[in-house]
Amino acid sequence: MKIVLDAMGGDHAPAAAVHGAVWAARDFDLTIQLVGQPQAIEVELAKHDTTGLDLPIIPASEVIEMHETPSAAVKNKKDASMVVALRLLKAGESKAFVTAGNSGGALVSALFGLGRIKGIKRPALSTIFPNDTQYGYSVLLDVGANTDVRPEYLFQFALMGSLYAERVLHIPNPRIGLVSTGEEEYKGNTLTQAVTRLLKESKLNFIGNVEGKDIPAGMADVIITDGFTGNVYVKGAEGVALMIKKILEREIRARPLAMLGAWLAKGALKALATKMDYREFGGGPLLGVNGIVIVAHGRADAYTIRNAIRVAREAAKNNIVHAIESGLSEL
Amino acid sequence: MKIVLDAMGGDHAPAAAVHGAVWAARDFDLTIQLVGQPQAIEVELAKHDTTGLDLPIIPASEVIEMHETPSAAVKNKKDASMVVALRLLKAGESKAFVTAGNSGGALVSALFGLGRIKGIKRPALSTIFPNDTQYGYSVLLDVGANTDVRPEYLFQFALMGSLYAERVLHIPNPRIGLVSTGEEEYKGNTLTQAVTRLLKESKLNFIGNVEGKDIPAGMADVIITDGFTGNVYVKGAEGVALMIKKILEREIRARPLAMLGAWLAKGALKALATKMDYREFGGGPLLGVNGIVIVAHGRADAYTIRNAIRVAREAAKNNIVHAIESGLSEL
Repeated sequence: MKIVLDAMGGDHAPAAAVHGAVWAARDFDLTIQLVGQPQAIEVELAKHDTTGLDLPIIPASEVIEMHETPSAAVKNKKDASMVVALRLLKAGESKAFVTAGNSGGALVSALFGLGRIKGIKRPALSTIFPNDTQYGYSVLLDVGANTDVRPEYLFQFALMGSLYAERVLHIPNPRIGLVSTGEEEYKGNTLTQAVTRLLKESKLNFIGNVEGKDIPAGMADVIITDGFTGNVYVKGAEGVALMIKKILEREIRARPLAMLGAWLAKGALKALATKMDYREFGGGPLLGVNGIVIVAHGRADAYTIRNAIRVAREAAKNNIVHAIESGLSEL
Repeated sequence: MKIVLDAMGGDHAPAAAVHGAVWAARDFDLTIQLVGQPQAIEVELAKHDTTGLDLPIIPASEVIEMHETPSAAVKNKKDASMVVALRLLKAGESKAFVTAGNSGGALVSALFGLGRIKGIKRPALSTIFPNDTQYGYSVLLDVGANTDVRPEYLFQFALMGSLYAERVLHIPNPRIGLVSTGEEEYKGNTLTQAVTRLLKESKLNFIGNVEGKDIPAGMADVIITDGFTGNVYVKGAEGVALMIKKILEREIRARPLAMLGAWLAKGALKALATKMDYREFGGGPLLGVNGIVIVAHGRADAYTIRNAIRVAREAAKNNIVHAIESGLSEL
């Protein structure tokens, strides 16, 4: 299988991207097409053992930077790595696209380059959120593609998230929860009340409203919200986990006995860190565009990129685009 | 100073409320008026040493339950503890009102019983959010009073939050941040973009957009958002902290050496728990109503109630209602 990677995308590109590609090519037996500035990519490739691996370089002279306004950047940079990569995907020369670059840029270039799946009003960016249950995580969407929404968008996010959870993550009959301010139906806002009506009338396994605290508790497998709330929520969770880590480290360093204690407990601390580590999940698909696009965290390191490529392979193997097309027609 | 307490409000009322009232009356030398069912309150009072304390009982036969629809409950229960308590506040027989009951009920009964401060379009429920900086926390509002909003509401939340932070929490020239999906001005949604314009033109110390991760990092002292996002965010943070605690406890219990380690590190773990504990802050004011109303967490225990009463005393001493009135006229 061929997967195309934005070698220039992310805070640590091209080093992390190229390293992740080498890693994934070996672990998952894939061809990884590296899109970007050939010289920069070659310098990075030379740092790794690539014997027997298929890592073709696809030249692209421009990069959409992290802080550029997506629409203007995509319009002006015809030879940006993302734009070039999506041309390959569109032409059928790749099965999936992975980027850790500007997520707005990925959205806009995917909309231009691939278009939407027929019938889908808006694509949504999904992510994996850790929780403390059997599967260990849930799917959360939208986390930023749509900050102004309509009820129909969220209804379709529920369908797409449910199919992704079932077909790609192999969670049977996924429970769908709608983010709100309380379990009671009168809670929430005008938007969530309208979405609730749509979801209750559908065939989806809708379990009702979930509150902020219910998401880490694993009350639902697929968590639906608008891209504003989802983005703030996910970044907030990351910030809270980081704050806890920093406070705990400081309090431990202030106490010699606690330092010994932390050393003795290091296996437990490491298990917690692994469980909370977004790098394990690599990235989330941009659901609803007419092709497989996986967006990884901007701070992605090589291990994150490797795992995002694994997610891309799973999504391609299980043909999530076709699953959404069929799902829409059965609704 | 006299403070009126909803003795029937909260998951652990009346026991926690009465115990918290006894504690606060002694620690802060206050008269606490206990509103609720006299017999139930007397039973609880008898469990404590109340020598020398002034804890008058104000009879109220009804209670607004946690899962009642606020507007209907307030309309139908004329003798509910909240409604009776607000009559006392309105009549000037108390300086402030504290409740751990149905927060929607507190909002609706305050709107009926006290009305809004002249010029304020919507009251907002604020809370204290821990962070890792000099002051150790920021003020976050709205956390649930307004789930459908307009830009002008958020603009006024910024004014009220700023005055609360400055006058009651003694944070000089508080930095105001608007919750959004990125620092860049093009990020966010239609609402936040309109609010940004209003805040930039004002005299407030507006530092711009803050992301979910910036709140626990302490990038701003006053965090402004709509009541939907704020509610989901705050409950999410609580859920993430709880998930981390549960995973860590389980991983520690699975390893004998880690159990010894945790015992050696217990001082550090306790310091972290104290820092993260919402009970320390007691409750947040409902800003914008024409009187001091402090809403505590529904799961409030006696210590939370004690601290919420302390917050009420601080807000009364610094006359936050008058501060908001003056602030509005100076805008």
